[in-house]
Amino acid sequence: MTNEHIVAAFDRDLETIQARIMKMGGLVEQAILDAADSLAARDEELARKVRRRDSAIDDLEEQINDDAARVIALRAPTATDLRLVLSVMKIAGNLERIGDYAKNMAKRTSVLVEMAPIEGANVSLKRMARDVQLMLKDALDAYVQRDAELAMDVIRRDRDIDQLYNALFREFITFMMEDPRKITPCMHLHFIAKNTERMGDHVTSIAEQVVYLVTGEFPDEDRQKADRTSTDASITEGD
Amino acid sequence: MTNEHIVAAFDRDLETIQARIMKMGGLVEQAILDAADSLAARDEELARKVRRRDSAIDDLEEQINDDAARVIALRAPTATDLRLVLSVMKIAGNLERIGDYAKNMAKRTSVLVEMAPIEGANVSLKRMARDVQLMLKDALDAYVQRDAELAMDVIRRDRDIDQLYNALFREFITFMMEDPRKITPCMHLHFIAKNTERMGDHVTSIAEQVVYLVTGEFPDEDRQKADRTSTDASITEGD
Repeated sequence: MTNEHIVAAFDRDLETIQARIMKMGGLVEQAILDAADSLAARDEELARKVRRRDSAIDDLEEQINDDAARVIALRAPTATDLRLVLSVMKIAGNLERIGDYAKNMAKRTSVLVEMAPIEGANVSLKRMARDVQLMLKDALDAYVQRDAELAMDVIRRDRDIDQLYNALFREFITFMMEDPRKITPCMHLHFIAKNTERMGDHVTSIAEQVVYLVTGEFPDEDRQKADRTSTDASITEGD
Repeated sequence: MTNEHIVAAFDRDLETIQARIMKMGGLVEQAILDAADSLAARDEELARKVRRRDSAIDDLEEQINDDAARVIALRAPTATDLRLVLSVMKIAGNLERIGDYAKNMAKRTSVLVEMAPIEGANVSLKRMARDVQLMLKDALDAYVQRDAELAMDVIRRDRDIDQLYNALFREFITFMMEDPRKITPCMHLHFIAKNTERMGDHVTSIAEQVVYLVTGEFPDEDRQKADRTSTDASITEGD
């Protein structure tokens, strides 16, 4: 087998894996939108659908990991190619987590329909979910087109999501102080807001992978650290 | 180079990476304990230390990923060995997340010292953190000794953590209903409880990797699914 044959085979393998990533991404985008719709419309049937469909997302991640491991074992890719394969596994991991958060949102819908609705919150939550879904769409487009500029744009937009979250956090506290009966539903809605904010962090991770693949460097170290912090350490009133 | 030389070189590389994993694990265990102590003692200085030391944990993860990628590129390990190297990257990823949660706990300590203390919560939170730290210690011991039994024991103990969390969740709701001034501190304490529960999920992930390495299979598919769900989808009152 000549070297070119090996290269062509590697490229074919990688295309197959990337196709699966795009399929997985499509399912995750749908899950985000459907979960937010099920919450806004108090539609338990749609919520159940989102929960059922999450296993297809998990299965795709497993397939992508198996494919990637097989490619590494078979083709023994060097430096740049290896980076590409490893980044695919990371992106699949991020997508799986986003899918989990969407499933979680759908689960809480089933709990929240039993409680009095909290006016106003659903509109903000739906807007946040919609923004995250559009960020994810652009992050995946940036990945396929190896477009670092578009990826940087996605990273910047994550700040808006953080701001939407902070505004909602304050709103929930106000609701709870006004009326103790709102405490339990607001705790659930707050979880949904926090998880949507975390979805944005995972989308940002995907965009950072794209920048790394194209430029060989992660975007601005400070910004990256800040993001990593915000994933789990955002304490909502800033630090 | 004979085949045996290659094997010996691979084993040496792997030992180096494993030593780094153990070092990283030690730092993360310390971070969990110190973060919980800083919260219980309202010790801002200790909290600042935990936050500063998180970058050493992040650096170790980066080194481990670089090492692992280099081993794959250089030694082109096959099936079982490749699984070993990939599992190391996953474990490092879990440790980094646990470290982030500890840093987050320390950050909230700095916010909570400004507020009236919530009696009782700190004891439960400290116990939860201590249990998670012991689970992590055992998961890493199980990894080094390739002890699937010990790993399974860690996985079982995660249920206790989930129960501690659920009890705390209900306690916080009661506090908030009794006194609206407790709403803001309880929101922060609730985050800490949730993040500690998530640490437990990441420790469980490490233990599952160990079971997979030793037996070639993930522990009982149902249990694994349940865990994955509980990571992000626990809706606290069960589903």
